[in-house]
Amino acid sequence: MALSPALYRWGVAYFDAASAAPLHPVARQALSASLDEGWADPARLYREGRRARMLLDAAREAAAESVGCRPDELVFTSSGTRAVHSGIAGALAGRRRVGRHLIVSAVEHSSVLHSAEVFEAEGGVVTRTPVTRTGAVAVESYADALRSDTALACLQSANHEVGTEQPVAAVAELCREAGVPLLVDAAQSLGWAAVAGPWSLLAASAHKWGGPSGVGLLVVRKGVRFAPQGPLDERESGRAAGFENLPAIVAAAASLRAVRAQAAAEADRLRELTARIRARVPAVVPEVEVVGDAERRLPGIVTFSCLYVDGEALLHELDREGFSVSSGSSCTSSTLTPSHVLRAMGVLSEGNVRVSLPAGTAPDEVERFLDVLPGAVAAVREKLGAPLPGPADPREIPPAGDAPAVDALVVDALGRRCPIPVIELAKVIGEVPVGGTVRVLSDDEAARLDIPAWCEMRGQEYAGEEPADRGSAYVVRRLS
Amino acid sequence: MALSPALYRWGVAYFDAASAAPLHPVARQALSASLDEGWADPARLYREGRRARMLLDAAREAAAESVGCRPDELVFTSSGTRAVHSGIAGALAGRRRVGRHLIVSAVEHSSVLHSAEVFEAEGGVVTRTPVTRTGAVAVESYADALRSDTALACLQSANHEVGTEQPVAAVAELCREAGVPLLVDAAQSLGWAAVAGPWSLLAASAHKWGGPSGVGLLVVRKGVRFAPQGPLDERESGRAAGFENLPAIVAAAASLRAVRAQAAAEADRLRELTARIRARVPAVVPEVEVVGDAERRLPGIVTFSCLYVDGEALLHELDREGFSVSSGSSCTSSTLTPSHVLRAMGVLSEGNVRVSLPAGTAPDEVERFLDVLPGAVAAVREKLGAPLPGPADPREIPPAGDAPAVDALVVDALGRRCPIPVIELAKVIGEVPVGGTVRVLSDDEAARLDIPAWCEMRGQEYAGEEPADRGSAYVVRRLS
Repeated sequence: MALSPALYRWGVAYFDAASAAPLHPVARQALSASLDEGWADPARLYREGRRARMLLDAAREAAAESVGCRPDELVFTSSGTRAVHSGIAGALAGRRRVGRHLIVSAVEHSSVLHSAEVFEAEGGVVTRTPVTRTGAVAVESYADALRSDTALACLQSANHEVGTEQPVAAVAELCREAGVPLLVDAAQSLGWAAVAGPWSLLAASAHKWGGPSGVGLLVVRKGVRFAPQGPLDERESGRAAGFENLPAIVAAAASLRAVRAQAAAEADRLRELTARIRARVPAVVPEVEVVGDAERRLPGIVTFSCLYVDGEALLHELDREGFSVSSGSSCTSSTLTPSHVLRAMGVLSEGNVRVSLPAGTAPDEVERFLDVLPGAVAAVREKLGAPLPGPADPREIPPAGDAPAVDALVVDALGRRCPIPVIELAKVIGEVPVGGTVRVLSDDEAARLDIPAWCEMRGQEYAGEEPADRGSAYVVRRLS
Repeated sequence: MALSPALYRWGVAYFDAASAAPLHPVARQALSASLDEGWADPARLYREGRRARMLLDAAREAAAESVGCRPDELVFTSSGTRAVHSGIAGALAGRRRVGRHLIVSAVEHSSVLHSAEVFEAEGGVVTRTPVTRTGAVAVESYADALRSDTALACLQSANHEVGTEQPVAAVAELCREAGVPLLVDAAQSLGWAAVAGPWSLLAASAHKWGGPSGVGLLVVRKGVRFAPQGPLDERESGRAAGFENLPAIVAAAASLRAVRAQAAAEADRLRELTARIRARVPAVVPEVEVVGDAERRLPGIVTFSCLYVDGEALLHELDREGFSVSSGSSCTSSTLTPSHVLRAMGVLSEGNVRVSLPAGTAPDEVERFLDVLPGAVAAVREKLGAPLPGPADPREIPPAGDAPAVDALVVDALGRRCPIPVIELAKVIGEVPVGGTVRVLSDDEAARLDIPAWCEMRGQEYAGEEPADRGSAYVVRRLS
């Protein structure tokens, strides 16, 4: 029997706002309205051009007010990615004489990290600051990284995968004292609030706050040396080539203002819902690790990883149940490497789920998600033949004295992908005498992250990685 | 008395489709429809992502069919300018080992010419092929320009300022034989027809055919060596960074198909209207030069220049009368240089007007334009104190024998902008004995183009340019 449209709709919840938020009603309205007025070239002097110019100017003023900058410091780009690319390239070029050193955190968005790679390929030097297990950078790590030849530092306002807020204001202050511009990737936070602190450049993306796709913001504070790269183009102060995407720009500015008007109340509401998920998931799903900072975090994002779970299979299960979420597991990506964010944090990547609630998410939807999740996880685990979680059976533990050929046990998981190496490890750990070790042979990138994470979660000792003929041998010592 | 909205609307005609065409109804419809379905990330596996992916795939197939290429050869960029920038940079990098030589025509769009400048700044060598007085390149000029180290050649399908069609198919054939890829900037023609010939890369812009702003096309034929530049980004085959502007992409593809369905009939209709303007303008406005090829031209574009006219003032006059047109005169631009297209053609730039009719232009609007134009030109000329056109009064011509101090006459137009230097020249020519010369001192870039053009139009001899303390001295010999 086919579900009725109403029932179908009821069962569907989109929980991936951190990828793209559904279009805000104000954005839709502004977009439609400006299609009639905003198609002409704002550089032209005739009436259609003047109308387009007025719309563009008004949108720039509105966006600048929301950002907390001067209108002439803000240009509209075609995406947040473009804003980051242009901002980093322009700032590095503008300060070429100062030096060729760039600082980024290890958990920046790929647009920042790929810009850094281009810079390295051109002879620049990049320092990647580490993060704690919650995903936050330490202000001191930026202090340590700053050099006399540092041209630019970059830091996200909050992390896109785990929601952890970064100490942007303090890092900006530090950079200001050192005379180094700080570029803030504010993609995940700008819909919630302006970025505090004396930052120098800022990038953001409209479709993250419910604006249309096709619009990013790049802000370059007055006084920051900036040399736009690429072919000359007079539009947007020479900082964003191509004909202005005006109706979408108008919609972006209008929706930013609209979401900000509701931001404080909506943040409180979503924060309560994500706190519920943070608290209840470990209670209803065994062997799970909730990652990211519990306090300093975005209102709508919560991320957790489930042992013995294939991330892609879990996404499919949840999708079938009507929930759209994303994952940083390597098993969902074509690159076969786990998310660089989870890697930098040193947390479990297998069975990873990011829930990012769009504004307006109903508590009922979250409750239903919490109802559905345990069954979805269990179904995936069962298919994979994962070891059933539960208290260890003491009869299974060989006494330490009986330890046979200690260190002889080897699990061959070569050619097997996440989460199989960890599942195989969990299956044999009962056979390892306490104090003894087991070697897991794996050529899966995720194992390097997930085997230590498993040890941490299960109270066993991760004894290190050894080279092997193929892949690596990950050594685990049984402690209990 | 304020005009009633109805009357106001009746009097308004937008004749600048070559800058941006009003949104086609199909584009509007498709855009609105896909706002609900197309906001999610097409790279995601959940239902909203799959729907977005289906829309993106369908749009790509439709656009590829209109272009005449395989879907996997076509990516969507954020603008035509971006398509050109990325296409040229990627093709040049892909063939770096072949050599560092680039061919462009002198009348390409600024996005092509600025890309060439970047290439030159990086050590590349650029050949700029000349054009005839009608704005067309000669196929032979590409044959002459091709070298063993030519990495890429670029040629527009038709010129954006004067409408002249280029021999793209023949140049593409020539390039194919030489093993050199040809990039075609098809921005002005793609709405009318697919580009013929064995071209290798193609760039276009949706808002030129009535699609939305924020969408360009870049086509790279299979087998063409191509190395995308800039930071890595997996979207659009790595050739167009940033989140896809999906609703606009859907609208772009749908409207391209829609305008093509009407293209043959609409082209005939507009061609007749522009032929009317080509024929009638010189009849109703004295001292005017219609530029561009009379036969091999786009259906909707016609361009002419008026002696003794300030382009910006004329645009204002026409705007007041309800007509939106553009101009390649230096007097309308902040750069103080006339259009590089008019310059390359060697035609008059002062008082330049480009009329580009959008699809659906009513014959009545064109008739009203032809009614209004003579008065608008006359009004500008009167304000400037331009010499009234008419047959020369024979009494004013000093007999050759009486020639006083030949070559003594100097007109000082330093610090005066287009069209003043030409007006001053026209005012004094009557005082010059036949066979004698006059020197016009000018530091206005437009004078270099417009004084020779005036000579050509008035049957006088342009005797060349001499260096002067400030600017240049342009020497004109009176012939009659």
